[in-house]
Amino acid sequence: MKVLPLAKLDKLLHPESVAIIGASPDKKKVGYAALRNMVLSGFKGRLYAINPKAEQYGEIEGVKVYASINEIDDYIDLAVVCIPARFIPSLMEELGKKGVKYAAIITAGFKETGEEGAKLEKKLVEIAQKYGIRIVGPNILGVVDTSAPMNASFAERSPIKGEVAFLSQSGALLTGILDWSCAEGIGYSSFVSLGNKADLDETDFIEALAEDEHTLAILIYLESISRGTEFIKVCKEVTRKKPVIVIKAGRSEAGSKAASSHTGSMTGADTTYDVAFEKGGVIRAENAQELFDMAFAFSFMPIPKGNKIVIITNAGGPGILATDAAEKYDLELATLSAEFKNELKSFLPPAANFNNPIDALGTALADDYGRILEMSLIDENVDGVIIILTPQAMTEGKETAAKIIEIRNKYPDKPIVTIFIGGEILGPDIYHLKKNKIPCFPLPERGVRAMAALAEYNRIRNRPIDDTIPDLERDKETVKTILEKVKLEKRNNLLGAEAIEVAKAYGIYAPITKLAHSAEQAATLAEEIGFPVVMKITSPDIVHKTDIGGVRLNIKSKEEAATIYEEIIKVARKHYPNTKLLAVDVQKMEKVGKELIVGSMKDSQFGSLVMVGLGGIYTNFLKDVAFGLAPLTESEAAKLLKRTKVYTLLKGVRGEPPSDIDAVNDTLLRVSLLVHDFPQIKELDINPFFVYEDGKGVSALDVKITIE
Amino acid sequence: MKVLPLAKLDKLLHPESVAIIGASPDKKKVGYAALRNMVLSGFKGRLYAINPKAEQYGEIEGVKVYASINEIDDYIDLAVVCIPARFIPSLMEELGKKGVKYAAIITAGFKETGEEGAKLEKKLVEIAQKYGIRIVGPNILGVVDTSAPMNASFAERSPIKGEVAFLSQSGALLTGILDWSCAEGIGYSSFVSLGNKADLDETDFIEALAEDEHTLAILIYLESISRGTEFIKVCKEVTRKKPVIVIKAGRSEAGSKAASSHTGSMTGADTTYDVAFEKGGVIRAENAQELFDMAFAFSFMPIPKGNKIVIITNAGGPGILATDAAEKYDLELATLSAEFKNELKSFLPPAANFNNPIDALGTALADDYGRILEMSLIDENVDGVIIILTPQAMTEGKETAAKIIEIRNKYPDKPIVTIFIGGEILGPDIYHLKKNKIPCFPLPERGVRAMAALAEYNRIRNRPIDDTIPDLERDKETVKTILEKVKLEKRNNLLGAEAIEVAKAYGIYAPITKLAHSAEQAATLAEEIGFPVVMKITSPDIVHKTDIGGVRLNIKSKEEAATIYEEIIKVARKHYPNTKLLAVDVQKMEKVGKELIVGSMKDSQFGSLVMVGLGGIYTNFLKDVAFGLAPLTESEAAKLLKRTKVYTLLKGVRGEPPSDIDAVNDTLLRVSLLVHDFPQIKELDINPFFVYEDGKGVSALDVKITIE
Repeated sequence: MKVLPLAKLDKLLHPESVAIIGASPDKKKVGYAALRNMVLSGFKGRLYAINPKAEQYGEIEGVKVYASINEIDDYIDLAVVCIPARFIPSLMEELGKKGVKYAAIITAGFKETGEEGAKLEKKLVEIAQKYGIRIVGPNILGVVDTSAPMNASFAERSPIKGEVAFLSQSGALLTGILDWSCAEGIGYSSFVSLGNKADLDETDFIEALAEDEHTLAILIYLESISRGTEFIKVCKEVTRKKPVIVIKAGRSEAGSKAASSHTGSMTGADTTYDVAFEKGGVIRAENAQELFDMAFAFSFMPIPKGNKIVIITNAGGPGILATDAAEKYDLELATLSAEFKNELKSFLPPAANFNNPIDALGTALADDYGRILEMSLIDENVDGVIIILTPQAMTEGKETAAKIIEIRNKYPDKPIVTIFIGGEILGPDIYHLKKNKIPCFPLPERGVRAMAALAEYNRIRNRPIDDTIPDLERDKETVKTILEKVKLEKRNNLLGAEAIEVAKAYGIYAPITKLAHSAEQAATLAEEIGFPVVMKITSPDIVHKTDIGGVRLNIKSKEEAATIYEEIIKVARKHYPNTKLLAVDVQKMEKVGKELIVGSMKDSQFGSLVMVGLGGIYTNFLKDVAFGLAPLTESEAAKLLKRTKVYTLLKGVRGEPPSDIDAVNDTLLRVSLLVHDFPQIKELDINPFFVYEDGKGVSALDVKITIE
Repeated sequence: MKVLPLAKLDKLLHPESVAIIGASPDKKKVGYAALRNMVLSGFKGRLYAINPKAEQYGEIEGVKVYASINEIDDYIDLAVVCIPARFIPSLMEELGKKGVKYAAIITAGFKETGEEGAKLEKKLVEIAQKYGIRIVGPNILGVVDTSAPMNASFAERSPIKGEVAFLSQSGALLTGILDWSCAEGIGYSSFVSLGNKADLDETDFIEALAEDEHTLAILIYLESISRGTEFIKVCKEVTRKKPVIVIKAGRSEAGSKAASSHTGSMTGADTTYDVAFEKGGVIRAENAQELFDMAFAFSFMPIPKGNKIVIITNAGGPGILATDAAEKYDLELATLSAEFKNELKSFLPPAANFNNPIDALGTALADDYGRILEMSLIDENVDGVIIILTPQAMTEGKETAAKIIEIRNKYPDKPIVTIFIGGEILGPDIYHLKKNKIPCFPLPERGVRAMAALAEYNRIRNRPIDDTIPDLERDKETVKTILEKVKLEKRNNLLGAEAIEVAKAYGIYAPITKLAHSAEQAATLAEEIGFPVVMKITSPDIVHKTDIGGVRLNIKSKEEAATIYEEIIKVARKHYPNTKLLAVDVQKMEKVGKELIVGSMKDSQFGSLVMVGLGGIYTNFLKDVAFGLAPLTESEAAKLLKRTKVYTLLKGVRGEPPSDIDAVNDTLLRVSLLVHDFPQIKELDINPFFVYEDGKGVSALDVKITIE
């Protein structure tokens, strides 16, 4: 699909020459608004207006109108397209011939309107690719870059110049956020409407903005992700340089997928996004308020070196609320040294609280705030400071704000977040803080959440580089042969013994399992394997074997094996009278271990998920499972089990010996390699999966594999 | 403690005569601020200033100053006390003799400062009780009632008159919220600082405000609850009339209690508050933003009859965010009838979304919004409407706001919440909406949360009255005798057989269990009981029997019983060489059932919690348990198990027969009665607790009881 190197979208966000196609003098038209915005933006490049009625219009807003782009004696970096959808394909040919690099297609009426529109969209993408034009949109508000500066949008106004970029899949949301941000004092470096993402998508812009010196953080509103694997790959890189914060809408349209495996039934549509964001180091905002509160913090504050904060307050209650929130969001209250406390005691009243949160009491003056803030910023045990102020009788709002700004400038290396609870009295002070790039919030929890995001990003930025997928010994050929055979037989489900063989080929321990097609064969195989054995129905049509009485344990003799073969086949035939194949897997019976489930489920967007967690009868109800995306690195695999609650049990409790956690992790790596090597595997369940005492391994008792 | 009937605090919130004790002309003093606020509040009763320097001052702010309250020839409803703490006890005597009904003690320097202060506080409460004076405080900002009107506080200004009452245990938080609310346009009926709650507390005010016609909802900031049981009792009544919304600070100071039982280890300090709030019908706000967003909704909007809402939007993205939030907060998107959709199609463009959320597209005009809103309000299938607007090119913010106000007045019976995403352009329209009592929020999730609170309150208000504690047959005498014996022997833990006897006396099924003090006796008892039996170490010092190998199953003969007796005693003595009593419980071995845990844990504030959930080795890790407060009603007991995940399993899945859920619920009621009848029971664990197939009952295999 992608024919051109990205070249960091430089000439899109910082073009030297821009043509507004469909520029209009009619103030109600998008073609007017786009031109006006370009003019008002202070764009310093060359700007052209295109309209067939060039002669009639002459100039619009001081910009000369040309009848066609061909009449311009200049190269064009960016064409902003405002003409009706049906004219755009032929326009694209023109742009292509002219050598235009980027087209921001504002016009709607494409994929979002149905099949006809989708065809039209496909057509214009084809033409664009032919000429190497990169498209933003169609169906967008436009593209704004405040450092260029340029505003190629039909928004009512320009965003304030700021430090964060905002990408949005909803143009209308952008208009609202723009209006709201102007009132709130939130500025943007770039402000991009992604629209239908016919060509350029979030991943392209993330990659480009990573290199943009004016952008400190990238905020994104997403409804879908176009290229899952690339998104993760790019984010993994970018989030070492700057934070990527996403709000993903459409959580509630969760998992209506038809899934036959346990793993599938436990995988919500949203699980994959969570796992993908984590793998990419993306911070996920829970709601729009959080997203923009984080924007404030990332715009103005440095990233802390850790999560130890000091809370300074002149009111107990808000201090407790902030402490609650700090715990919730994984911030730690720094332990104050005896020295620190003694210094506090030297100037605060005896009734003050000298522990963290530091309650300087209602009598705290600006100098008190300043002194504690300075002490905290100097203290190497403190990573960031949260300042809470309520307007009490003696409170010096204005002076305190000024003090904070002064000290902030003196010690710019640690983040400060302020929570000024007030409006009428504190209003001017809050304004003063924001104006001076100190994030200020009206209520405790919001400020703490924002600080927590800074600390979270510190962990993300400094996470160990972990890109090595262990190349474990495995027998690809065997698996390939089996999967091809299944495919040839037009089956989707592997038989039990086949699936066990696949697992074994990848070094996953499983008990010896042989397929029997008759009672006699079952008896012979059972004897060969050694008693006791387990016998299980096997058929491409039967998924839940236990439910129909198709699994029998602890079979101790040849005679028993033969009888049970017949019984199993009989009961299965009763439930599935029309199935083509009914046979029985004869398996060596293993001793009982702690019961886990291991599985995998393919996601159309991001590849295959790998799952591990509590097995047994509770699996589906308790959903004590964790997910990762294949291929797992060693440390990713090791992290999965740790996230489950059953992990505590496996570590060994109340005198019990620990379980063989290394063997579980090894299995996860092998499953990950298997589903990654063979993307045709749609679902995989190892259930039950027994884990034994440390050093004694694991056993995949039953393996189900479904292919596409 | 409480000597006077509450008389609904009428003369406190609506006094006829008020004396400011310690009134001062010094503008920096609290005694000045309190007097000034009373004067400015428009108080229509009789106001007196008290200061020993009466002669010197003459009048302050136009109010005549008296040297002492005795000089006033009038009765005094409320004394507002601003003099230093040490003078207050003797003042209380004066007030008592004068017959003053209420004292709002603003002065700090009591319990909050330490032991000395606590003594002083105790003293003044004693004096107050002698005379029947009711106290608010000490250590408060004051008491404000905007309908009286009166402002007996030293706040910088008065709240706007409004529809919700706000009680706060933090005075400084009140000052901040007051300042913020004035800017946000949130008004209050009453605004009360609870301070140290030496006498009047949250429960008193909730009870009083329930009768206050000016108060539609009661908001509370709490750090602790003074009288747990009364709080629940009062809230249960009050929340049928008006909502009580609490933000409880101090979540993170959770459970440092030393608990020896499983139940105890799974009970956080916050669990009890959650259970108590639920029992009382109290809505718990997660953070301060939620609390005040709810205040907006409850101030201005009626309570919906259900949770089915319509979302109207002119922008897809925010519509999806709102839908996500609706699902999160248990709102249902109303299904639109074919008729409804057809009408929509008659005036909206074809590209619009005619399902809920209704996306009227960016071209939606005020009339479109108005028509959809009116259709929704008329539709009997719709309980409430959420309107989202972003400022796009054709958007009529002003006219849409006006339309919403007009229609709201025409159909006042269903709640409307608006989400206008904007600031600079939409600012005046947002202001206009708020001014006209339409809640308006800047971001989708906050508006949805507020609407959800209205719907939640509808469920609370209409919940079935359920106050009958079933008086099940039980043998209190036996339990009394056993507990007295244990107490007499200075033990805290009951022996196994004793605990089983207690359970049986309360009709909880448990297998026959006999205490053996020798190998011989064990053998004889085992034979009497009938084989197979279980044998378990019993000692007041041993809590975790299994951990030391003190539980042996499936004992099949007298000889075996005798041998195992010795083995158990030996291993126990090794672990507990100094214990006084070592014996063995011989118990009939029961068949294996589904493993649950049932327990109880006493809370100092609210009484005893009853717990039920998943048992077995996973109990402590998975914490799949639910809690209720004793004494449970029948429907409360029935609700508990339903909240656990294991309930799904007990209902019967994949062909398995259902378990005897009725028998579990019956056990919960019996445990609830037991711990309620005998409050000396500190902790109780039934673990394992087996539940069998429906109709086949349950079995309490092991019971642990600890008394105070």
